Amino acid sequence: MKRRDFFRNTALAAAGSAVISPFQSVAMPTHRLLNHVAGKRAKNIIFMVSDGMSVGTLSMANMLSERREGKLCAWMSLYQEKKAVRGLMDTASANSLVTDSAAASSSWGGGVRVNNGALNVTPEGDRPVPILQKFKAAGKSVGCVTTVPITHATPAGFCVNSDSRGDQAEIALMYHDLRFDVMMGGGTEFFSADNRKDKQDVFGKFVSSDFSVVKTRDELLAADVSGKPFLGVFYPNGLPYALDREHDEALKANTPSLTEMVTAAIKRLAQNSKGFVLQIEAGKVDWSAHANDTGALIYDQLEFDRALAAVLSFAEADGETLVIVTTDHGNANPGLFGATANFEKIIDFKHTNDWVLQGIDRDFNAHQVRERIEYAQGYAINADEAVRLLAHYVTDRGEDGLYNPYKLPFADFADIQRKYTSIGWAGTGHSGDHVEVAAYGAGAELLKPFVRNTDLHYLMLEAAGVKSAQI
Amino acid sequence: MKRRDFFRNTALAAAGSAVISPFQSVAMPTHRLLNHVAGKRAKNIIFMVSDGMSVGTLSMANMLSERREGKLCAWMSLYQEKKAVRGLMDTASANSLVTDSAAASSSWGGGVRVNNGALNVTPEGDRPVPILQKFKAAGKSVGCVTTVPITHATPAGFCVNSDSRGDQAEIALMYHDLRFDVMMGGGTEFFSADNRKDKQDVFGKFVSSDFSVVKTRDELLAADVSGKPFLGVFYPNGLPYALDREHDEALKANTPSLTEMVTAAIKRLAQNSKGFVLQIEAGKVDWSAHANDTGALIYDQLEFDRALAAVLSFAEADGETLVIVTTDHGNANPGLFGATANFEKIIDFKHTNDWVLQGIDRDFNAHQVRERIEYAQGYAINADEAVRLLAHYVTDRGEDGLYNPYKLPFADFADIQRKYTSIGWAGTGHSGDHVEVAAYGAGAELLKPFVRNTDLHYLMLEAAGVKSAQI
Repeated sequence: MKRRDFFRNTALAAAGSAVISPFQSVAMPTHRLLNHVAGKRAKNIIFMVSDGMSVGTLSMANMLSERREGKLCAWMSLYQEKKAVRGLMDTASANSLVTDSAAASSSWGGGVRVNNGALNVTPEGDRPVPILQKFKAAGKSVGCVTTVPITHATPAGFCVNSDSRGDQAEIALMYHDLRFDVMMGGGTEFFSADNRKDKQDVFGKFVSSDFSVVKTRDELLAADVSGKPFLGVFYPNGLPYALDREHDEALKANTPSLTEMVTAAIKRLAQNSKGFVLQIEAGKVDWSAHANDTGALIYDQLEFDRALAAVLSFAEADGETLVIVTTDHGNANPGLFGATANFEKIIDFKHTNDWVLQGIDRDFNAHQVRERIEYAQGYAINADEAVRLLAHYVTDRGEDGLYNPYKLPFADFADIQRKYTSIGWAGTGHSGDHVEVAAYGAGAELLKPFVRNTDLHYLMLEAAGVKSAQI
Repeated sequence: MKRRDFFRNTALAAAGSAVISPFQSVAMPTHRLLNHVAGKRAKNIIFMVSDGMSVGTLSMANMLSERREGKLCAWMSLYQEKKAVRGLMDTASANSLVTDSAAASSSWGGGVRVNNGALNVTPEGDRPVPILQKFKAAGKSVGCVTTVPITHATPAGFCVNSDSRGDQAEIALMYHDLRFDVMMGGGTEFFSADNRKDKQDVFGKFVSSDFSVVKTRDELLAADVSGKPFLGVFYPNGLPYALDREHDEALKANTPSLTEMVTAAIKRLAQNSKGFVLQIEAGKVDWSAHANDTGALIYDQLEFDRALAAVLSFAEADGETLVIVTTDHGNANPGLFGATANFEKIIDFKHTNDWVLQGIDRDFNAHQVRERIEYAQGYAINADEAVRLLAHYVTDRGEDGLYNPYKLPFADFADIQRKYTSIGWAGTGHSGDHVEVAAYGAGAELLKPFVRNTDLHYLMLEAAGVKSAQI
């Protein structure tokens, strides 16, 4: 029996209005559930996604912020100062309690649940208009900023309809035709003739169509804020992790931080007197959770938090901006399971597990492995553990996993690290946990304490006073 | 360097008011931070703790409720109906980012952080008056209900001062002297002359001192609601898991459910025209998380949720009751990491892993192990997995762990189950995650979106209009 049929044919379906299934939002748009109390209309909306952020990720970033910076992270400060409305969000997709990023972003972007892997194409083949197209039609400037390829699932879910999130080369072409105002992130390989299978020079195509196109941090910082649509693509695939970038002068010089991209994006978008809508994604929080990579995870979350601080600073001054901060699903459910002193080792981390493991090859000996880890993270694993790690390289077996093309031993390394950092992980994939969502500013009062992911689509439209029917 | 010194001697300490450390609440009572907006005074307070509830536990219980009952759990309904105020709570203790239940309950009960293991005794030796003593002195009726021994850490943290949570036999005697109005749960072994090391008949002592003492479900249901202080102790140690009780007629007849205890407690306590304060703990949610026992965890959480529904029903009718619902810390950070169909197997579970593993011995063969699991949980593990499980019994090694006196292979069984249920676990102990806290009713508006655990102590006093200085 298909999943939809299961609900149609059982007591659950018969129970009528008392039933709330993950599929109900398909049949009954949830915006009717939103009770719009008096509040300012949102001229601008900034929708921030720390992709794959389990509550442990947010908690550990906050605990590290307190220990490293002496203060709460921006997200928790927002709560402490009682400035935000909080919700817990059910993240299911049309075909699973455990969503992927494509279905999750589509739930916000299109207002209906789709199957994992799809971008705003429902199981029945409906193709709802993605939200940035709606807002563009309403006269607003629109855009996306991410630390993964700009053609990746989370930005794409606000922008396009596509049967498969995997068609990133095709999505790059769709972006050209859509002429959104600001698109920024990684993913050179989907724009450059050298890397595309079809050998099309998509960068050239954007330039010919009168886009501003930039590829380095310097170009980004020097770019003017004229009305031309703007494309910034800074790295072959996902951008470097914040922690690695921080300790690598070349990366720091050549690739922008998330906060730098966000600041530049807002500067451009805020030129429009009719307002703007911007999605911001810390996409590598998800990748690092898949890899059980503590340093990558916590420092990318903290970089997301810096971007949030910049956004809040704009929104506070502006007074007509709705800020939504959330994640699309949990991932790996990490947590601190032991000594505070172990946790505090992370304060002095210089590099991620990704950096450590990428730099090891089969010619390393155990001593060199230990030295590399001690340099990167300040503690030495023992010789047996180093040999265990090396075995993955020598045998050519390695680990499978998303975002792990070189089959590096991420999960085994995390297992070894546990006794040094006390960080535990419940898996290497997405979880079905309900997740945190917060709203600040104009229209924030629309957020209910418990929401379905699709509700946020209608919340954004209602907050901005933009009706689906208008377009 | 000691932890306190670290904060005293570093830039963190120098930063002054910008610094928020887990120890700050010791120096500066956090009740000053609470901004009491206009609201009704709370005559009654019901403080509900699902012990060791990671957000994944709450999420999975809600998802199962939707699939099993066709509706949201009571906790999520409360949110969906916009009736509650939500906070995220920092759970640290005085000496660790990862608290135990004694320090956690003391933070609420005494308003200051203590070291793990202590009950309202600070690292400096201060002994703050526990909150039920404060409320009793203010004329209210007070009590605790739990599914673990009534002398266990979470109830004890609202009641007594003790250097060590382990002194449960001593704590039973303290309860006698304190004459609280309702104390109910497990823990016969700490009251009965047969089981106590000192051979004291503590039950007899309570009876001689004019307590009503009951030991079975029938006695509980038949008991009158006269003004005598009431002690109900129904099982040698922790009460049976809700799932096992549900499928065992003898257990069902002899031991009360959490909801039955709660209903009886409220009936008694609500006799007092000056109001009452009741702590309710689902203590075995924590035990099942330590054991990575999915069926035990989710069904005990759902039983907690039924008790919440009963409490909300009372509070809604009463109109002068503050309900706080929370947990003391995460535990094991479980999550659903795969197919929805796997998750739905849990709908038909008859028994917990605890029941399965308690019933196996070294004379079992692999076939019998498989049959027992299939009977209890509806799926058959394979023969290799059954042999792997049996090996723990044959070798006499077993697993260590809290609440695992028989060294049963809980963690290995959970590992085997993962491919059948898609439930993953990040550890077998408490986590440092920030946790969910919600408030409903009179004074609920006092809850801020981000709180320290100690804040709840002052919130309760302020909501009820009871000053520390009064007593």
